Amino acid sequence: MSEPIDLLINPRWIVPVSPAGITLENHAVAIDGGRILAVLPTDEAHARYQPASTVDLPQQVLIPGLVNLHAHAAMNLLRGLADDLPLMRWLQEVIWPAESRHLSPVFVRDGTLLAAAEMLRGGITTCNDMYFYPGAAAAAFAEAGMRAVVGLVALEFPTPWASDTDDYLRKGLAIRDEWRGHPGISFSIAPHAPYTVSDNSFLRIRALADELDLPIHTHLHETVTEIRDSIAEYGMRPLARLARLGVLGENLIGAHAVHLDDADIELLSRHACSVAHCPTSNMKLGSGIAPVTRLLCADIRVGLGSDGAASNNRIDLFQEMRHAALLAKASILDASALPAHAALYMATLGGARALGLDARIGSISPGKLADLCAVDLGGMLTQPCFDPASHLVYVAGREHVTHVWVNGESRVAKGVPLLQINDIELLRIASVWHTRLAN
Amino acid sequence: MSEPIDLLINPRWIVPVSPAGITLENHAVAIDGGRILAVLPTDEAHARYQPASTVDLPQQVLIPGLVNLHAHAAMNLLRGLADDLPLMRWLQEVIWPAESRHLSPVFVRDGTLLAAAEMLRGGITTCNDMYFYPGAAAAAFAEAGMRAVVGLVALEFPTPWASDTDDYLRKGLAIRDEWRGHPGISFSIAPHAPYTVSDNSFLRIRALADELDLPIHTHLHETVTEIRDSIAEYGMRPLARLARLGVLGENLIGAHAVHLDDADIELLSRHACSVAHCPTSNMKLGSGIAPVTRLLCADIRVGLGSDGAASNNRIDLFQEMRHAALLAKASILDASALPAHAALYMATLGGARALGLDARIGSISPGKLADLCAVDLGGMLTQPCFDPASHLVYVAGREHVTHVWVNGESRVAKGVPLLQINDIELLRIASVWHTRLAN
Repeated sequence: MSEPIDLLINPRWIVPVSPAGITLENHAVAIDGGRILAVLPTDEAHARYQPASTVDLPQQVLIPGLVNLHAHAAMNLLRGLADDLPLMRWLQEVIWPAESRHLSPVFVRDGTLLAAAEMLRGGITTCNDMYFYPGAAAAAFAEAGMRAVVGLVALEFPTPWASDTDDYLRKGLAIRDEWRGHPGISFSIAPHAPYTVSDNSFLRIRALADELDLPIHTHLHETVTEIRDSIAEYGMRPLARLARLGVLGENLIGAHAVHLDDADIELLSRHACSVAHCPTSNMKLGSGIAPVTRLLCADIRVGLGSDGAASNNRIDLFQEMRHAALLAKASILDASALPAHAALYMATLGGARALGLDARIGSISPGKLADLCAVDLGGMLTQPCFDPASHLVYVAGREHVTHVWVNGESRVAKGVPLLQINDIELLRIASVWHTRLAN
Repeated sequence: MSEPIDLLINPRWIVPVSPAGITLENHAVAIDGGRILAVLPTDEAHARYQPASTVDLPQQVLIPGLVNLHAHAAMNLLRGLADDLPLMRWLQEVIWPAESRHLSPVFVRDGTLLAAAEMLRGGITTCNDMYFYPGAAAAAFAEAGMRAVVGLVALEFPTPWASDTDDYLRKGLAIRDEWRGHPGISFSIAPHAPYTVSDNSFLRIRALADELDLPIHTHLHETVTEIRDSIAEYGMRPLARLARLGVLGENLIGAHAVHLDDADIELLSRHACSVAHCPTSNMKLGSGIAPVTRLLCADIRVGLGSDGAASNNRIDLFQEMRHAALLAKASILDASALPAHAALYMATLGGARALGLDARIGSISPGKLADLCAVDLGGMLTQPCFDPASHLVYVAGREHVTHVWVNGESRVAKGVPLLQINDIELLRIASVWHTRLAN
C-alpha cells in the first residue's frame, strides 16, 4: 500500500549539495508536512508514495533554496540612487541623508517586501538581514513567506529607530519577544561594525548573544580605512580587538572580510567564526577582493551575501555564486580555484551553517525543511549542457528559476510568483518611493 | 507635409553613447532605409514624419546594438564541456582533442548559428569573430542576420581547416573574395597569437593587412606563461616583438591584454592599438585582471569581448559591461573607476572604433546604421530606477532585452527572436552535438 504525501517533485537532475559534489538523475524528492521525506529513484518514489500533487520538471535541476547571508533588504528602495561615487561621498552625500530623511517603519516594510519578492523570484529562500526597524522587516519577510534571520541592529549613533546602543538593543529584544515561536522568522544581534560600536557595547552584546543563543552579525574588515582607523584608535586591528573583547565565536558572522592578514585569518579560524562573502558589493564599492581561497583552506565557514541594493545593485545569489567562483580564480591565477560545486555549497549549506540552521536547511536531505529552487537548463541559452552544476554557476541566472518552495509551500511556479502581494502592488510601492526619493 | 519613413521608435529613454554621458527623455529615433535619420523630440518627430511603422517602448531604454569585440562563436557547442580545470589541462585534455576530432564546416556553421542567436537575443548586433572555417562562420552570421567581422585565422599548426600559415591565409583570402560586397559581413586577418605565429608569418600578415585594408585580430598577453616563454624564445615580451616586426598599428586589436607593464602600455598607446577586454574569460581561466583604467588613461581604445562559450560560459555583453565596471573598481579600490557610461561606451562605440566601423555603428547618431537594442527597466527587478544608464550596467541583464534591430530590420521583438532559424531547430542542433561531444 503506498503512503500518502503532500508533494512529489520529479526534476531532470538534483544537486543535493550534501552529499557534496554529486548530481543525481532519475531521482525524485518526496515532501510531506513541509519537510523532505526522501530523495530516491523515481521508480521507487512512484511505487512507495501517493502524492496529493506531483510536479514534473523535465528540463530543470533542483537545488536547495539559496541562503543570502548578508543583506539590508529595505535598501531595495535606494537601488541605484547613486552609483560610481567614492565610498565616503556615497555614504555621506547620498545614502545617510536619504536614510535620515526617509527612514520609518513604512520605508522598511516596503523596501523589505520588494527585496523579499526579488529574492524569492531568484531562488533565495532564506535571508540574513540587518537594518533598522527590525519589526517592520520581520513583518515583511513573513508576509512574503520567506525565511529570515532579522538582525537587531545596534550602534552608538542615533537614527529615527533608536538613540544609542542600549536603546537599539532594548527595542530590538522587545521585537524578538513579539515574534517568538514564529516558524520562519528568527533573530540575530547585529552590532553594525567595529567602528560604530564601543567596547562596552560589544561586551554587552556578547553576553546577550550567549544568554539568548543568538547569532552575532556584523560588518568586518570591509575597507582598508576602517582597519587603519582601528589601529589609530585602539592600537590594533578590528579582529584583534573583537578577539580581546571575547566577541569572536562560532555564532559570529563577519560580513565582507575583504582585508585579512594571516593573523586575522588565524583568529577567524581559531574561534570558528563564519564569513559572509559579498563579492559584488566589494567590487562595486571599491572595497577589494576577499581572500576566499585562503579562508576555505583555513576551514572557515563561508556563505554568500548580496549586501543591500544600493551597493550591488541586484539581490541575486546566482550572480554572487558566479562572482565568488570567478574572482577566486582571477585572484590566485588558477582556473581550478573554487569550482562550481564549492560555489553552490557557499550559497546554500555554507550560509545555513553560518546561521546555525544547517540541521534544518541548506541541502536536499531527508528530514530537512523543503526549501527548494528549480532552474530550467533546457532553453537555447543554456544548451548544450554537459554538467548541470557547472551550468548553475557559469551559465544560468536567476532568470532561469521556474519554481521555488519555502517549507514545501510554493512561492514561484512556472516562473510566476505566488505571493500574497502581487507585482502591480509592488510596482506601485516602488513608484511612490521613487518619487519621494528622487526629490 | 510630413515625410514618409520606414520606422519611428518611441522609447522611454535613449542613451545614444555619442554625445557621451547623456540620457534623453521624450525623444524618438527616426529610421529609413536601414539608417538613423534623426534623434529628435517626440513631438517634433510626430509632426515631421509619417512612419510606415511605429514602435512604442514606454518602459524601455534604447541603446546602440552591442559590439562583441572578441569571440569564437562556434565554440558555443563546447559550452561547459570542461570547467574548473587549470588552463593547460583544459586546452590539452579537453578542448584541443574535442576540436581535432569534431572540427568541420558543419561544426562551425552550427556552433556559430547558436552563438549568433544567443548574441542577438542579448542585444549584440556585431561580432568580431576568430575561429576555423571562416566561410562557414560567415554563412551562419549572414543566415542569422547579424553583423560580423570574421577573422581569417592563421597559425603555424595544422588543423582540419588548413595545414600552415600560408595555407590558412590562402584559404582565408579566397573566402573573403567570395563574400566581397556583402553588407553585413567583413573580414580581419587573425594571427592566433604571438606564441603560435612565427616572425615571418607576422611580417606577411602585416603586409597583407595594409594592402587589403583589414584589421588584425590576435590574442595578446593573456597569460603570464606566454610572456615568460616569449622572453625565453625571443629575448623580449610579445608586444616588444610585435613592435619590432612592425605589426602594431591602429588596425591591431589585441584580445585579453591582461599582463601589461608600463612599456607594453606605452607601445599600445604609441601605435594606437585597440584592446578587446574580456573580463569574464580572464577570470574564469585564471588569467587575471586586465589594467583597464591604465589603458583608458593612456588613451587606448578598449572594447569588450565575450571570448568563446567554452571559457565564459555565457555570450553576454551585459555581463561583460558589469564585470568591466566592477573589476576596475575592485582592482584600484575606487568606486568611481569606470562608471556606467564608460562601460556602455566600451560595449558599443569602443568596440566599433577598434574595428574601424565607428562611422557606421556604435552610437545612436544620424547617418549611422540602425543597429539598436531596447531594454525594459519597468519590471519589479529593475525598480526603482533613478538612472537608466546605471541600471543598464549594474541591474539589468540580457533577460531584459525586448527589441533588437540590425540595419533597421527587426531581429527580436517583444522578447521573441525573429530569425530565419527557429528555437526548435537550434535546440535540435545543440542536442545532436551534445550527444556527439559527450561521448
